[in-house]
Amino acid sequence: MEEMVPGSVGTSAGFALRLGQAIFSTASLLFMSSAVDFYSFTAFCYLVIVMGLLIPWSLTLAMVDACSLFVKGPPRQRGIILFIVVGDWVLSFLTLAASSSAASVTDLMLKTGGSLCLFKSCRRYQLSATIAFLSWFLLIASSLFNLWRLPSL
Amino acid sequence: MEEMVPGSVGTSAGFALRLGQAIFSTASLLFMSSAVDFYSFTAFCYLVIVMGLLIPWSLTLAMVDACSLFVKGPPRQRGIILFIVVGDWVLSFLTLAASSSAASVTDLMLKTGGSLCLFKSCRRYQLSATIAFLSWFLLIASSLFNLWRLPSL
Repeated sequence: MEEMVPGSVGTSAGFALRLGQAIFSTASLLFMSSAVDFYSFTAFCYLVIVMGLLIPWSLTLAMVDACSLFVKGPPRQRGIILFIVVGDWVLSFLTLAASSSAASVTDLMLKTGGSLCLFKSCRRYQLSATIAFLSWFLLIASSLFNLWRLPSL
Repeated sequence: MEEMVPGSVGTSAGFALRLGQAIFSTASLLFMSSAVDFYSFTAFCYLVIVMGLLIPWSLTLAMVDACSLFVKGPPRQRGIILFIVVGDWVLSFLTLAASSSAASVTDLMLKTGGSLCLFKSCRRYQLSATIAFLSWFLLIASSLFNLWRLPSL
């Protein structure tokens, strides 16, 4: 049996990373959609769309990890790991772009005197962008660990 | 002699990619810094800083490629390629974050009626962000080609 890279698919660290991604992306989506006026701004709509993509992806892979941990061994097919690495990688770009857009737009809104922040929604935009950055960190960690494992297959 | 991946360090395609990166990042920096009021906005300052990092990186690697093409063969040390891959990768994240921030801020400025665009500078911001995206594409292509070559070393 080959050595498992901690954090890759089918390990408990990988499961924890996926759960963290799912929790952070759900929190980011909820904070953003609880703000009154988010759909007037392209950057915030984009963040909501990307988080809506990231949640099912993370949850599916968390289930795959849980299955591998408790039922059968980790997946050994090269194709599956490659698919997961590429998916993680594409989603990490989308997440980074979305969170940095949301963060910079919020910064501009605060800087222009807060006239665009209805009912203190800027606080929620800030929180949502910050949590999206955290989910990006976890996503890129997952992607790296799986990439590391790829040549050993 | 191992097979060379086109686009990796020491190939003519790699040289073209690096030159493209250098040209695009210089153009983006020039468009941004020719706008009147860019330093009042965090996102634009960040874009200028990242482009200021990307220009020397691309030019150095373009020189390395030119040297490998005309003087000696491509570098074969695993450490050098790994350093280039990691550097490309980190810079690609910075570039993506900077260009999406700048693009979304420009979008917001145009949407709020253009009162923040002094002397039609929004047009330049848009151009600068678009060109920064193009340099990101080339950077990620370089990074992928070099990553592809890494296991054969």
